[in-house]
Amino acid sequence: MEYSRKNFSEWYNEIVELSELTDKRYPVKGMNVWMPYGFDLMRNIDEMVRERFRSDDFGEVMFPALISRTMFEVEFEHIKGFEKELFWITKGGRETLEDDLAMRPTSEAAMYPMFRLWIRDHSDLPLRLFQVVQVWRYETKHTRPFMRSRDIHFTECHTAHENFNDAEAQLQTYRDEWNYFTHMLCLPFMEVERPDWDKFPGAVYTRAFDTIMPSGRTLQIGTIHQYGQNFARNYDVKFARENGESEYVFQTTFGMSERLVAAVVSIHGDDKGLILPPYVAPVQVVIVPIPGKSESLASYTSEIFRKVRELGIRAKIDARDSYTPGYKYNFWEMKGVPLRIEIGDREVEEKSLTLRLRTEKGRIKMALSDISGLGDMLEKVSDTLRARALKILEDNLSGTAGEGQESRIETHVLCNRKECSDSMEKRTELTMMGHIMNRGKEGKCEVCGNEGRTSLFSRPY
Amino acid sequence: MEYSRKNFSEWYNEIVELSELTDKRYPVKGMNVWMPYGFDLMRNIDEMVRERFRSDDFGEVMFPALISRTMFEVEFEHIKGFEKELFWITKGGRETLEDDLAMRPTSEAAMYPMFRLWIRDHSDLPLRLFQVVQVWRYETKHTRPFMRSRDIHFTECHTAHENFNDAEAQLQTYRDEWNYFTHMLCLPFMEVERPDWDKFPGAVYTRAFDTIMPSGRTLQIGTIHQYGQNFARNYDVKFARENGESEYVFQTTFGMSERLVAAVVSIHGDDKGLILPPYVAPVQVVIVPIPGKSESLASYTSEIFRKVRELGIRAKIDARDSYTPGYKYNFWEMKGVPLRIEIGDREVEEKSLTLRLRTEKGRIKMALSDISGLGDMLEKVSDTLRARALKILEDNLSGTAGEGQESRIETHVLCNRKECSDSMEKRTELTMMGHIMNRGKEGKCEVCGNEGRTSLFSRPY
Repeated sequence: MEYSRKNFSEWYNEIVELSELTDKRYPVKGMNVWMPYGFDLMRNIDEMVRERFRSDDFGEVMFPALISRTMFEVEFEHIKGFEKELFWITKGGRETLEDDLAMRPTSEAAMYPMFRLWIRDHSDLPLRLFQVVQVWRYETKHTRPFMRSRDIHFTECHTAHENFNDAEAQLQTYRDEWNYFTHMLCLPFMEVERPDWDKFPGAVYTRAFDTIMPSGRTLQIGTIHQYGQNFARNYDVKFARENGESEYVFQTTFGMSERLVAAVVSIHGDDKGLILPPYVAPVQVVIVPIPGKSESLASYTSEIFRKVRELGIRAKIDARDSYTPGYKYNFWEMKGVPLRIEIGDREVEEKSLTLRLRTEKGRIKMALSDISGLGDMLEKVSDTLRARALKILEDNLSGTAGEGQESRIETHVLCNRKECSDSMEKRTELTMMGHIMNRGKEGKCEVCGNEGRTSLFSRPY
Repeated sequence: MEYSRKNFSEWYNEIVELSELTDKRYPVKGMNVWMPYGFDLMRNIDEMVRERFRSDDFGEVMFPALISRTMFEVEFEHIKGFEKELFWITKGGRETLEDDLAMRPTSEAAMYPMFRLWIRDHSDLPLRLFQVVQVWRYETKHTRPFMRSRDIHFTECHTAHENFNDAEAQLQTYRDEWNYFTHMLCLPFMEVERPDWDKFPGAVYTRAFDTIMPSGRTLQIGTIHQYGQNFARNYDVKFARENGESEYVFQTTFGMSERLVAAVVSIHGDDKGLILPPYVAPVQVVIVPIPGKSESLASYTSEIFRKVRELGIRAKIDARDSYTPGYKYNFWEMKGVPLRIEIGDREVEEKSLTLRLRTEKGRIKMALSDISGLGDMLEKVSDTLRARALKILEDNLSGTAGEGQESRIETHVLCNRKECSDSMEKRTELTMMGHIMNRGKEGKCEVCGNEGRTSLFSRPY
């Protein structure tokens, strides 16, 4: 079976259902069902994220999903930024609600009235909380599973600090965690400072983590925000310094979502289907016994299964007798399982395994006594995924990406002014995403000649 | 500190906030914030539940939170049963929705239109799915954290089978799991067959797991439902038998919620605060070092912490220097930590630990070399909790429960007719909960003299 990636969009829409990550037939527009395989993938990502934030001294909370109109009616640019995207509950049973309720699009308006109650003095700081929840946005743009939906799986971190520098240090910790997450997911990214007119509503500044998809379009897969005292002023979140002085807290947030699944699917997949990063793959190793003459096939298969599990590897035996080995190979390749073990008469006899890495051509023979080397094999798959993904990104940045992409990436040296950005957007027919951190160069703005920095132009999802 | 349980209701409302399980000050009526300590407790319960259902071959899914009016407009008693409890979304941004959306109160109406697409023939059965999600109900009754709220943490299992007997066998598996869950949570319960007029809307029959609270009122903490083909007929969920014959599937569900937290808090707590069942306690062991003359207190404390963690026990050191040991003892007792380790000069010198079980009076000396015995100590706490909880239940059933309870339990032999139930409800001023399975006796209906079974009368939450 081949699922051609030449038309990326079609490939994507087909593979997310074929591989049973999601079902798009749910009868509400823009909302899809997480199927067990997809949910397990998302959960493995969630658990990775949870473990790291907990070890960074974040407490996990869960706030109610609903925010009243009164809570939203703070005169604040943040609120205006979300106005058009809110789902509004106006009725409970047959009664009309006195105060309409919005489904959270993100949780600032839910959390900060409580921060106001929780934070009294400096000993309450830093406050570090996160939650893994659904958020809802009434998207009017074209929806697509995991990339843009109306019912979104979302992780949000919220912190409050005594001063701006502590908040900046928190952002650096987010970056370290983000490096870890993307390393495990084998995803390259750019840190892009969104221009003022495109930052998160209410933030002092927004740094987005943008990745490049095989279509040549960019996908924002994470964001960190410096709020300074902007939110604290609007929600009246103050603390007493040691000298008794009252001061607004300094805040940060970090957000990421099911878009990580979109990126993993899109960037690593191939014409055979998904290729899941071993660290989060629901099934890391599939074992396919090939019926032959040996009577000890089943027991040898079980022995291998047990040993693989003892290595802490998530494994599955596919012993369905109504399917041929060839069918099973295709099936599990399509589902993106990083490593396959084939066992036939010869393997039983030799006490060996035949391996097939999802990212490599050809088979590898391994003695049963060397089975602890499977971890290295999985790491090899990860390394290959990282290298391939980085190539997509670099080729797009250098303008040498393959033909037939839906769009292209350009970089231009630009100043901070909206006029110059508008002018360049018009010229390139692309969107100005912001200055690229740590890889762009300074120089003269290509439009006005003032001081500028390397900026990313793309067609974002 | 003492938090008297004499007025159970007051005690409950106070302790759930003092122990930082929840914050009730969230500005939307009937919706509370899960604080980190409370959320960790709920998550430990969730993970226990997940692990068991997964090993029973259930797939974990996540359906969208919203169900359209069209999906709800099936002519079916199930829908009518929930009509008054739905939150309705009528607006997206500034637009009025063409098809109003309800927030799920439970997921039958969301799932079964998809079951219809997924199930083709007998090879697709059994289908076993579960999800751990929030559900929303527009409660008009008095709300109370974890017991009755409008934003509810909920686990629901849904299965489909080829015949009624397979569905019955599934219900038995639920019972086995329920026995496991309640054993680990140290909660006794009764299986009660709800009368026809009080069963889950649409079910063939409903068995509720009711427990008895220290107030003498009952709390339904779990339910299993036999749906037969009722739902399948309404949602047109059919399968082809091996002989090609088309037939509606047979379905079951199992539901439980944050009410498990309510039961754990209420039934195990005492005048000092919570007592959490060791299996799910966020902190199983707290270590309190008592500063004295020894210079190796800190290193000895760390050594113990490391050893406790190596036993797979969730431990915490409270080394805050702004609080006295006495304050810390009270604090962690109030938070319900099952086991405390005190370390002072003598313990350092003797290479020993002093233990205090949350359920027992007096301290226990343990040699460091015996530290692996901590697991048994935690099991001892569980055993004590089970015995105490069972006593509350039995005392209430036998009518020997203590004075000052808010309400009382009665059992009466009753037939199945609503008239007899109504008459007995009037006489007792209690609610007829249904026949008690496995412990009631058959006999003559106390009202009409026909054949009857022992039935539970109580004031339910």
